[in-house]
Amino acid sequence: MFISFEGIDGSGKSTQARLLAEALRAEGREVVLTREPGGSAGAEDIRRLLVEGPPDRWSPETELLLFTAARRDHLERLIRPALDRGAWVVSDRFADSTRVYQGAARGDDPAEQARFAELVEALHRLVIGVEPDRTLVIDLDPAEALARATGRAEAQAMTEAEDRYESMGLGFQQRLRAGFRDLAFRHPARVRLIDGSGDAAAVAARVREALAAP
Amino acid sequence: MFISFEGIDGSGKSTQARLLAEALRAEGREVVLTREPGGSAGAEDIRRLLVEGPPDRWSPETELLLFTAARRDHLERLIRPALDRGAWVVSDRFADSTRVYQGAARGDDPAEQARFAELVEALHRLVIGVEPDRTLVIDLDPAEALARATGRAEAQAMTEAEDRYESMGLGFQQRLRAGFRDLAFRHPARVRLIDGSGDAAAVAARVREALAAP
Repeated sequence: MFISFEGIDGSGKSTQARLLAEALRAEGREVVLTREPGGSAGAEDIRRLLVEGPPDRWSPETELLLFTAARRDHLERLIRPALDRGAWVVSDRFADSTRVYQGAARGDDPAEQARFAELVEALHRLVIGVEPDRTLVIDLDPAEALARATGRAEAQAMTEAEDRYESMGLGFQQRLRAGFRDLAFRHPARVRLIDGSGDAAAVAARVREALAAP
Repeated sequence: MFISFEGIDGSGKSTQARLLAEALRAEGREVVLTREPGGSAGAEDIRRLLVEGPPDRWSPETELLLFTAARRDHLERLIRPALDRGAWVVSDRFADSTRVYQGAARGDDPAEQARFAELVEALHRLVIGVEPDRTLVIDLDPAEALARATGRAEAQAMTEAEDRYESMGLGFQQRLRAGFRDLAFRHPARVRLIDGSGDAAAVAARVREALAAP
């Protein structure tokens, strides 16, 4: 099984990915816990190009090509081999993050949004072509999620560039949340919305329920 | 005018790009002399991912995505702005290098070659979409070109990785030459074959003739 976690910054998805990996391992399964962008050696090198430098370092199209190159490497070198030997793969973000973040960053012009969404899907079809078996969107009110993310950024002394998306503020996080909810609405069999409020153990229980559901 | 030079390693194309840029400047034109992979700050950063590390660092698909990301950045940040202000752009390699090198590297299976060539063109259409106004292929016997390239590699102490393509030997260079000749055959209006034998001044004169020809 290939499971991805998605959600806005501070939603708790990374914690939930880790908790699910630990729970599956406790049941005796081999689990590969990974993340995007990055996850394989080459993809982590590409990640550095994406998270370092000024926010206008890349155009949206170049950035999308770099995200896609990193994803292809991650898929070839880590995800596919793990699935082929029967392991579970739990990834903190996958292609849906690109769809939602790039969509939310394209502003309010519907024609420009549609053109870019088309490009995202065309690239995905050309060189990625797979989706997780199930995607869990940890859904949380952006105000609460942003408070969590800000606290974490200070605690870990995240660089300004790593924090690029998170620094775009509440309006941006609201657009992201709407994007993730829309994904769950359009792909109900694969993408499940998980209530991200409450403590991590309560959310983890909801994650297990969503995985057990048909 | 946007002019690209193409050819196998050691063909003299870089020298010819420089000589053409100098000649055009002597006529009072603004000329941007550039190269691929690289040419803009971001593309040079991506170039390092492509030329450093072991030969199997990237799969053909990931490598193609990185080349395309670098080309998109080069086009947006350097080539288009220069053309927009009326400058000439002379580039040592452009998209044809990807077509020919990737094609030659795909081995002898026609189905695999066709599949990959399709992917190269699909990516080009999606995010590049432009061709040079004229492309000059410096055509030279691979044995002679390889001798030139080997001499240069020693002289400049090129790293093993930079030398990756050149180290693939005479058979590979012969496939490349065939690929470039095929391009000129299929796109006669844009791509011109230049006899690369003889000294640089003689080849430069042929380049000017080819540019003056309709």
